[in-house]
Amino acid sequence: MLVLITYDVSTINKPGQRRLVRIAKTCLNYGQRVQNSVFECLVDPAQWTTLRAELLRLYKPEEDSLRFYFLGANWESKVEHHGTKDTPNLETGTLIV
Amino acid sequence: MLVLITYDVSTINKPGQRRLVRIAKTCLNYGQRVQNSVFECLVDPAQWTTLRAELLRLYKPEEDSLRFYFLGANWESKVEHHGTKDTPNLETGTLIV
Repeated sequence: MLVLITYDVSTINKPGQRRLVRIAKTCLNYGQRVQNSVFECLVDPAQWTTLRAELLRLYKPEEDSLRFYFLGANWESKVEHHGTKDTPNLETGTLIV
Repeated sequence: MLVLITYDVSTINKPGQRRLVRIAKTCLNYGQRVQNSVFECLVDPAQWTTLRAELLRLYKPEEDSLRFYFLGANWESKVEHHGTKDTPNLETGTLIV
């Protein structure tokens, strides 16, 4: 299933900047960055449980915003991209243009 | 239907900064900003056709990235939010917490 992860992490201080890096790295362990704070992660339910728990451990509720969008298994027809930052289709590796 | 719009607009120059403002305003005409460059727009097909055309007119393919995610009609179970920037449910107005 495809889970879209978007976030706004407060970077006004050093801890926030570190959180941003860790959150991005964690997302990259499971998927790809498609825009600055937007990640597409193709995960099974067990992987999602782990990823979700890690993100909720890392982020700071009073300062950061995390949003998860569940696009399901048949996600390819639900995504449309225009412009720069072409990204490969997570399943086939072909570019989504 | 809910369309999620995410974008990265290059703001290294004045025209890019203007595009960013215009693109955000255009999205706000149809929905709400849930994070810095993430908008949720509840639109019917005709509205989406108009909004999409406007965004594609405004953005600059060589510099900007636009992504559209189609979450359909039963989108409420497909969205999960944590942290700051609570946003009202587009249909009921209640906060998604």
